Amino acid sequence: MLYSKLFGKTIKEAPREASASSHKLLYQAGFIRESTAGRYYLLPLGLRVQSKIQKIIKEEMDGAGAQEMIAPVLHPIDLWKETNRTNSVGFELMSVKDRNETEFVLGGTAEEMLVDLVRKFQISYKDLPFNLYQFSTKFRDELRPRGGLLRLREFVMKDAYSFHATEQDFKKEYAKMMTTYTNIFKHLGFDASKLYVVESDNGYIGGEYCHEFIVESDVGESKFLITEDGKYAAHEDVAKFKRDEKNVSEKERPMEEVEAVRGNTMEDGVKLHKLPLWQQIKDLMMVDEKGNMILAVVRGDLDVNEVKLAHLAKAYQLRHATEEEIRGIGSEPGFISPIGISKKVKVIGDISLRTIKNAYTGANKKYQDLINVNIDRDYKLDIEGDIALAKEEYLSEGGKKLTQKKGIEVGNIFQLGFHYSSKMKGAAFKDRNGESKPFYMGCYGIGLARTLAAVAEKHHDDKGIVWPKTVAPFDCHLLVLGAAKDRADKVYQKLIEGGIDVLYDDREDVSAGGKFADADLIGIPIRLVISDKTPQGKIEWRKREEKETRLISVDEVFERIRTKE
Amino acid sequence: MLYSKLFGKTIKEAPREASASSHKLLYQAGFIRESTAGRYYLLPLGLRVQSKIQKIIKEEMDGAGAQEMIAPVLHPIDLWKETNRTNSVGFELMSVKDRNETEFVLGGTAEEMLVDLVRKFQISYKDLPFNLYQFSTKFRDELRPRGGLLRLREFVMKDAYSFHATEQDFKKEYAKMMTTYTNIFKHLGFDASKLYVVESDNGYIGGEYCHEFIVESDVGESKFLITEDGKYAAHEDVAKFKRDEKNVSEKERPMEEVEAVRGNTMEDGVKLHKLPLWQQIKDLMMVDEKGNMILAVVRGDLDVNEVKLAHLAKAYQLRHATEEEIRGIGSEPGFISPIGISKKVKVIGDISLRTIKNAYTGANKKYQDLINVNIDRDYKLDIEGDIALAKEEYLSEGGKKLTQKKGIEVGNIFQLGFHYSSKMKGAAFKDRNGESKPFYMGCYGIGLARTLAAVAEKHHDDKGIVWPKTVAPFDCHLLVLGAAKDRADKVYQKLIEGGIDVLYDDREDVSAGGKFADADLIGIPIRLVISDKTPQGKIEWRKREEKETRLISVDEVFERIRTKE
Repeated sequence: MLYSKLFGKTIKEAPREASASSHKLLYQAGFIRESTAGRYYLLPLGLRVQSKIQKIIKEEMDGAGAQEMIAPVLHPIDLWKETNRTNSVGFELMSVKDRNETEFVLGGTAEEMLVDLVRKFQISYKDLPFNLYQFSTKFRDELRPRGGLLRLREFVMKDAYSFHATEQDFKKEYAKMMTTYTNIFKHLGFDASKLYVVESDNGYIGGEYCHEFIVESDVGESKFLITEDGKYAAHEDVAKFKRDEKNVSEKERPMEEVEAVRGNTMEDGVKLHKLPLWQQIKDLMMVDEKGNMILAVVRGDLDVNEVKLAHLAKAYQLRHATEEEIRGIGSEPGFISPIGISKKVKVIGDISLRTIKNAYTGANKKYQDLINVNIDRDYKLDIEGDIALAKEEYLSEGGKKLTQKKGIEVGNIFQLGFHYSSKMKGAAFKDRNGESKPFYMGCYGIGLARTLAAVAEKHHDDKGIVWPKTVAPFDCHLLVLGAAKDRADKVYQKLIEGGIDVLYDDREDVSAGGKFADADLIGIPIRLVISDKTPQGKIEWRKREEKETRLISVDEVFERIRTKE
Repeated sequence: MLYSKLFGKTIKEAPREASASSHKLLYQAGFIRESTAGRYYLLPLGLRVQSKIQKIIKEEMDGAGAQEMIAPVLHPIDLWKETNRTNSVGFELMSVKDRNETEFVLGGTAEEMLVDLVRKFQISYKDLPFNLYQFSTKFRDELRPRGGLLRLREFVMKDAYSFHATEQDFKKEYAKMMTTYTNIFKHLGFDASKLYVVESDNGYIGGEYCHEFIVESDVGESKFLITEDGKYAAHEDVAKFKRDEKNVSEKERPMEEVEAVRGNTMEDGVKLHKLPLWQQIKDLMMVDEKGNMILAVVRGDLDVNEVKLAHLAKAYQLRHATEEEIRGIGSEPGFISPIGISKKVKVIGDISLRTIKNAYTGANKKYQDLINVNIDRDYKLDIEGDIALAKEEYLSEGGKKLTQKKGIEVGNIFQLGFHYSSKMKGAAFKDRNGESKPFYMGCYGIGLARTLAAVAEKHHDDKGIVWPKTVAPFDCHLLVLGAAKDRADKVYQKLIEGGIDVLYDDREDVSAGGKFADADLIGIPIRLVISDKTPQGKIEWRKREEKETRLISVDEVFERIRTKE
């Protein structure tokens, strides 16, 4: 490819809002352009990288016995009603009506579509298991798209769905997909020591357990906790930790209501009562999507994780109650308490409340607190469970110190079990005895554009991108400098004829410095230079990540590229 | 691939509504399943074929210097408003609003998106020309999807858009794309003698001229006319023909109004007046999308082509006027006449009206006709032009007999000129003198699923599909019959290790006859059989389209497949 004819050349300016390096560099180097927020064009260079990522994923998926197919992206909304997902994902879901007023969902994930397809067939236990996957455009009406390709509203996803006769059989596939994903990300050039497989939340997918593949990165949005030995790793939305016992041996004193002329913060409580933060009860009034009020209570030194809370509350979406709403149910902002709270409020408490005695909290009245409050004796929880946020330095359930890390979620795998097959009529196979049994299922996703951005995040320096060979847009980047065009043209021809993918910077009005800078920015792993100073029969060879330049022959170029050196 | 594990096995039943062979066979052989009308799943076998078609198209497009990229499928509706296409394609267009009430079109074609992308760059004449293409999902809210994959509401299209400094430069690309398309369809296995490149209508794409690539087939919807030498070929919506002169030398007699107690048909007029059909004037009252009334008039023996009429009328969509509407403007169904018609009606007449004298027609009153009617003297046309439908046996403008043919439109190429660049601000490049000039453009499309269906239409017999090698889902189909599983397993392994794509029918509970029938139905070009009767070291080799079976060794299988015999 002649660079002079390539559509999407380098540019000095970066988008103003670009904070992630991948966003900045992919824009400047001519890989991407924004259409509207969260919707991007992949320019020829960008598509080349995405296609290589797709090829690697396909090879590994095929190798694992999965079968590629493709489903429409417009899903009949009736299918989503069968599983009640129109409610659970309403806020990210887009829908459209056709000329006959039939309503369709713009697919964000395709469980219902695949189950609907499979139930069109008479499946016998002999046909099982199978794993069907596709590369298709997905739509998510994200509140805040960000970071260039890091969080998009439209993107290509590899999504796979496996169907099994038994849980035992599914577990084999789940393990196989874990290995397959690990291989994929390894081939994509991610450093295995910076790739984490962590327990995670299933969001609106459903099922009982799932794992995220996270590439460690400061620009990522996935926070997770991990023990030093790596044996336990979990997203903060599901991470479990040990609540240390505080004053559990203390004798329970009689509860008292006291005057408390103080501000509304936890710290104000600490100052007034001169007691530790952990002895305070933290009260968080939330409202679910149906308008139900939920009071979350945890030990004062802990924070509430809203995803954990939503699961226990069986809510799809939670928001903080307004001051008016808090007063409306007879309480008072800053002085909320589980004791004497309106019966309309569901009280959900963290297990940490059992690690303290004689706690203090508000009294649902302005400037009044309660002291010497004790669980069971003074207040009861409607639901008791794990709603606290795990943090750095906390201990795992096994007693090991947790470290917090951040990263980009590049893939995930989900156990679905009977979540879909139990809701969708006819999602069943005939077993050995001719009886109809529901499928046991799993699903497995990788977002291609985000993966592309993650590669760029992990492989760049201050001059530009440094693509791993496996996903580089071209094998090598040939530059002609000064009066050497004839020689460079011949080398270009020879490389092409030899099956090497070359980007040839043939521009005549750009300086050597300009060409070097562009080559560094674009980041093709091998740079070849021919200038009027290059000895006859030789080419200047340099790897993008090295400083050293060597003089080698064209034949040696072939050798080195082919041996994947 | 083991057939026992393949998702999408053969089935005896065909869909009730299936009339096209491709629809029936692709369903029965397990290549496709319908989701909703016009939206299909491609099962693993179907996707394999589509991927091969995509690969062939990509190779040819890349070879022609086009650059692959990809645009979002949700297009901001504001772009479509810039070119006023929201009006012109309203009836096939679907749109959707996001959470911020921003409206998007579900792309059916992407001219605006590509122009919008290109104008984000500072393009100089040195960057031109370029041709950008993509494979992406397209949406068309078709009134009547049909024939399985023949007319879909959702499908993958290869769409390309070229940008040029001059018309002259564009014409080179147009010719190159014509050659590229011819090569593509040849590689896909279409018989060159049954592939036609015909002048066609540009629909809502715009521009001044375009060509369709049509594969001759009875199930196709594209009707076109062609001279015997093939030098002129045009879709019936644009085909020009010579109007033969009738009684032009006759003296013009005085016009008379006569009583005409007759029925409403043309034939009733012929009987009553005892004059030839060609001497009658045919009047067709139409209504455009804005409610304007249009009277189309042609010589009685000809028919009106509504696409030609719409172009002259500058209308997007025409329908026949109701009897009430006809009476509402003071005329009478069956007795419409251009003479004395309401001034509200735009009269558009065919050039054939000049080939007759002393014509007869209605008088806009029940049971009254006019005779001895002559153009210019008795009536004037608001617009005169070509609105008549070309038919078999008519003569081309060059005087050669036209034959009518039918086929499947598998691709098309369009001159766009300044159609988009003149409407979209900033769609310009800097010329040699630093002046801003609008792009001269073209666009080029191929629908992948319809092409797949067209291949199946052209390549099948009464037993099933007969895939051309280039697009077959597998290189060969291995069948094991009787007690020969160990031998067949070994051959399967050897073929796979040798890089041959094999479908292996390893089922144990299916008869030889059942396996043969399935192999014929699926249509993989080479069938290999190993049974307990097959001599040791040999395999039964048979081509799908031949009757002869040969006994050959595994090594010979490799040789034959590799040499593409």
